[in-house]
Amino acid sequence: MFATKIFTSFVSNLFKIKPMQNAVLITIGDEILSGNTVDTNSNFIATELKNIGIKVVQIFTISDEIEIIKNTLKSAFEIGDLVITTGGLGPTRDDKTKKALAEFFDDEIALDEVTFEHLKAYMEKRGRIEILERNREQAFVPTKSTVFQNHYGTAPCMMMEQDGKLSFSLPGVPYEVKPLIKDQIIPYLKDKFSLNYLTTRIVSVVGIPESILADQIEDWELALPANLALSYLPVGTRVKLRLTATGIDEEFLQNQLENEIQKLFPIIGENIIATHEDKIEKILGEILNEKELTISTAESCTGGELAQLLTSNPGSSKYFIGGIVAYATQKKTDILHVSEGTIERFTVVSREVSREMADGCQSVFKTDISLSSTGVAGPGKGEDGKDVGLVYYTIKVKNESETFKLYLPHLERKDFIYFVSQKILQDLVGILIGK
Amino acid sequence: MFATKIFTSFVSNLFKIKPMQNAVLITIGDEILSGNTVDTNSNFIATELKNIGIKVVQIFTISDEIEIIKNTLKSAFEIGDLVITTGGLGPTRDDKTKKALAEFFDDEIALDEVTFEHLKAYMEKRGRIEILERNREQAFVPTKSTVFQNHYGTAPCMMMEQDGKLSFSLPGVPYEVKPLIKDQIIPYLKDKFSLNYLTTRIVSVVGIPESILADQIEDWELALPANLALSYLPVGTRVKLRLTATGIDEEFLQNQLENEIQKLFPIIGENIIATHEDKIEKILGEILNEKELTISTAESCTGGELAQLLTSNPGSSKYFIGGIVAYATQKKTDILHVSEGTIERFTVVSREVSREMADGCQSVFKTDISLSSTGVAGPGKGEDGKDVGLVYYTIKVKNESETFKLYLPHLERKDFIYFVSQKILQDLVGILIGK
Repeated sequence: MFATKIFTSFVSNLFKIKPMQNAVLITIGDEILSGNTVDTNSNFIATELKNIGIKVVQIFTISDEIEIIKNTLKSAFEIGDLVITTGGLGPTRDDKTKKALAEFFDDEIALDEVTFEHLKAYMEKRGRIEILERNREQAFVPTKSTVFQNHYGTAPCMMMEQDGKLSFSLPGVPYEVKPLIKDQIIPYLKDKFSLNYLTTRIVSVVGIPESILADQIEDWELALPANLALSYLPVGTRVKLRLTATGIDEEFLQNQLENEIQKLFPIIGENIIATHEDKIEKILGEILNEKELTISTAESCTGGELAQLLTSNPGSSKYFIGGIVAYATQKKTDILHVSEGTIERFTVVSREVSREMADGCQSVFKTDISLSSTGVAGPGKGEDGKDVGLVYYTIKVKNESETFKLYLPHLERKDFIYFVSQKILQDLVGILIGK
Repeated sequence: MFATKIFTSFVSNLFKIKPMQNAVLITIGDEILSGNTVDTNSNFIATELKNIGIKVVQIFTISDEIEIIKNTLKSAFEIGDLVITTGGLGPTRDDKTKKALAEFFDDEIALDEVTFEHLKAYMEKRGRIEILERNREQAFVPTKSTVFQNHYGTAPCMMMEQDGKLSFSLPGVPYEVKPLIKDQIIPYLKDKFSLNYLTTRIVSVVGIPESILADQIEDWELALPANLALSYLPVGTRVKLRLTATGIDEEFLQNQLENEIQKLFPIIGENIIATHEDKIEKILGEILNEKELTISTAESCTGGELAQLLTSNPGSSKYFIGGIVAYATQKKTDILHVSEGTIERFTVVSREVSREMADGCQSVFKTDISLSSTGVAGPGKGEDGKDVGLVYYTIKVKNESETFKLYLPHLERKDFIYFVSQKILQDLVGILIGK
């Protein structure tokens, strides 16, 4: 059955044009270079391409200048079979991508009637009857291009071809990029090209520093099959081992990965908290669903990040009942029933207040599990003069609660909140799976 | 006085070595290319460099291969005076940056005693007495390099020089990158080089699509002084106009920007909600502080994002009293006192429930302002079969409340939550400043 599977996949691929393996992304515009915007498009596109076996091998982030765009297109086509550009297609005068595209492909720009009709319909639907000259210009595209219409904005996506290599030029707004990639470009590529499969699994390891981990699993790593690649991704609270397998049969690759991951258990099994999901809120979500446990949160210094993380998971309404952000001290007593005496005696940022917050939270929301945090995210000192970077958090599961302390004075406010929230969910996962 | 100011700044700069204007960033490693990690380092570094007048003109994101790293260093030095690489310096076998660096600069790698002592002290402080060979390797650096010690990790930062141009090679972990850049590299650059000032202001415009806005301010834009650059940054809910001024006198540039921004008011003053701060939570924070108003949140579909946004602002404890994430329907009645009759009659995702949530929130937290959201973030339909992408939100200021409806079926869960939260804060800003 296994041999048949490879054969079928081989035959069905024979009818496709050619393999397409390496992609290059070009991000155009000063928003990212100036530090104003974080580039999330590249992340999204790389993930989508990876899922159909195309690997992003390089990303160029460049400014909106015709010569630079042309030179970068040249470099990109030397490296990849597929080039995707984002940005530089808005209706305003700082966008020069279209012109560079036409010059690079030795083409002219002309009005595309179909695109213009689409644009008019798009704008009329939004109550804008009068079409400005500036908008009409958006329907001008290189004459050799194939247009993929944009249903969520006014700039069309243009595909160009050169010696069997392809480029797609998209606008830069993430809300427009996502549907163009997902609903149009990915299906197009899947249809036209013979694609290799790339399958990835991530193993989350806690409690061992990267260098010691690398030593412990060295033999295992050296014995990995040639089509498997390993990367270490240290995050704040754990090390992720990413295993990527490349080949033509998806099921075979999945079995291969599972097989290698199983071999890790005799070596570092006690430190592995997940082998399927990557994000801690998803790992936790699966466990909560499986064990049919409910959860609630009482936050001070994490300011809603715990609730936000838990609810970012689709389907979280099954286990997340609710949360309270008790920022003002008074609200800790009013809503979470923390005793005033405890606060007076131990101050707000204390082990005791953290524990009472978790108790109060569990009784307000009537959940199996409650989480609490109280600390000083900074940059200013806490109400009671406690040090920036100090935090106590409590994890209460049924009747048992445990309170932890962290001191992270070197982290900026945002990183502090992120790190603490990740750590709390990670510790809860550890407790629930008995590690 | 103005002429003196320019003169002084000119004279003080004469003693510095040479001007340094353009920087190139190189991000090394497969984490970003694979779509696994969003590149936040570049954003941070670009912002920090911009503040001392150095402009990032290009970013390369490349994979961890010696030849690619060397070629990219070559391209980068052709474009910029300053090259900063991040990533590829961990203790594990997938890191090749150091080797590429030595080869590119025609140098050898050798053990640096000072770095090794620093490393040992760093690890001992963390209770790791035994130094692995793998860790010792981290103290090997190119012999021509100047080392900047890393106080938050084991990989040192190395500076190399070539024909008056500089490169800094940093590890990739954001917690390590930030202090290296802020506490060591920026002060070093400020000390050694004559720097141009770059000053930026962002004007937030609501209620006009980008193309119409561009038409309305065309004359103003064409009349801008030559040292000012304008960019349009459309975000989900508004258009940001970014004005960047370059020159040698910071105060002059600031006046120049203020002057040009004032000229916008007669044209589009009604649509401007902010001219100093960029982030909506900061814009709102300033207004709340100034008007001495307090705020609380009652969230359903935004799942804590509103509280998280509000508390992400340092100093938010002055105005943010607390929030409730009432995810389960029962909690909307228990804690927020939404009447069961209202839920039965209108369903949970309704104008009426949203309003009662805001009322309940205001009475629980006793704040001047309360915000509420109830909707379906998807991907599954709501409990009552309501459509994915539907949301009602209420803004209550003192005794007056207003409820709004949005329908955003095309947005993914995460984007939906983000968009709705941004829009709620933006609408509140509009209401508070009477626009």
